Amino acid sequence: MNYPNGLKKKTTNTFSTPVSHKNRGMNLEEELNNTNQYYRDIDKAYIYKKPTPIQITKVDYPSRDKTIIKEAFFTIPSTTDYNGIYKGYYIDFEAKESKSNTSFALSNIHPHQIKHLQNIERHKGISFLIVRFTSLNETYLLTTDKLTSFLDNNDRKSIPLDYFKENAYPIKDGYNPRVDYLKIVDQLIGGTK
Amino acid sequence: MNYPNGLKKKTTNTFSTPVSHKNRGMNLEEELNNTNQYYRDIDKAYIYKKPTPIQITKVDYPSRDKTIIKEAFFTIPSTTDYNGIYKGYYIDFEAKESKSNTSFALSNIHPHQIKHLQNIERHKGISFLIVRFTSLNETYLLTTDKLTSFLDNNDRKSIPLDYFKENAYPIKDGYNPRVDYLKIVDQLIGGTK
Repeated sequence: MNYPNGLKKKTTNTFSTPVSHKNRGMNLEEELNNTNQYYRDIDKAYIYKKPTPIQITKVDYPSRDKTIIKEAFFTIPSTTDYNGIYKGYYIDFEAKESKSNTSFALSNIHPHQIKHLQNIERHKGISFLIVRFTSLNETYLLTTDKLTSFLDNNDRKSIPLDYFKENAYPIKDGYNPRVDYLKIVDQLIGGTK
Repeated sequence: MNYPNGLKKKTTNTFSTPVSHKNRGMNLEEELNNTNQYYRDIDKAYIYKKPTPIQITKVDYPSRDKTIIKEAFFTIPSTTDYNGIYKGYYIDFEAKESKSNTSFALSNIHPHQIKHLQNIERHKGISFLIVRFTSLNETYLLTTDKLTSFLDNNDRKSIPLDYFKENAYPIKDGYNPRVDYLKIVDQLIGGTK
């Protein structure tokens, strides 16, 4: 493994898709990374974004201690993007932005990611979806439980905003942390709603 | 994200370093991946190897629905390789092979990975190191607790095999699962040793 000088401080494992770099202002992923960093800084929780899975097909060794990946492809993630520990609980979630004002398209999540969230819930972890409706600037935490009951009772290809309003927890924008989702996890642990 | 046809079934996120591909027979990483797959198949635990963190520096878009990474570098992992959930517990570990017959060089683990294991333990997760002495074919599970007490009481740059014999749990080779480390986690949960 090599860590070329001056390169490691740029993107790294927070890289998701090349497209996201064109956005200015902080997107949900960046805000969650900052939030998780804040939680770590105050020793509250250790939750990380997983590196983006890729398949490497060509590698170069220009010198003994240097490795350059010359060809690689993004692959389908087997799990969700974020996991870690809070108060002894295993935390696992996926975070997505929706451009629509009225619904969240289920095509945004891979079916095996939904299965993964359900597996975690069944094994007594805390799993959920964080969805931001970007143009409304509204962010919701939808528990796997409520996600599953939507899927079980609907044939729709998207979850209407109204379903979030009625069944999910709104996450208020903050300064630091930006997306204080653990406040809601505290409620989940407490067992309300 | 693109998933080029016929490519996704090859290596994927189990890729660790290009060197490991030269080995024949199953190495520790492959055995752990098989073991974790087995645990998932029988719905016992959901523990995954994280993708290898890389920093992408050049990307090509040969067509609208195709993305090729043309240059990327391996970066230092911020956490350990494996984490997941078992019986509601957050599980986190790093796995390493040692070529030496007499000791495990601490240079194999990054200092922030050790810190990470300690953070997890402090927050009531179960964290440990799995070390295989390859030429002896002996595999040990060393809890973070015992790792920390070694580090606190020694200036050595490696942990002697004898320390493992006295303070770690041997993991016996099996057929399926190959490396049944959850048997030892059961003992940790039970609170012996």
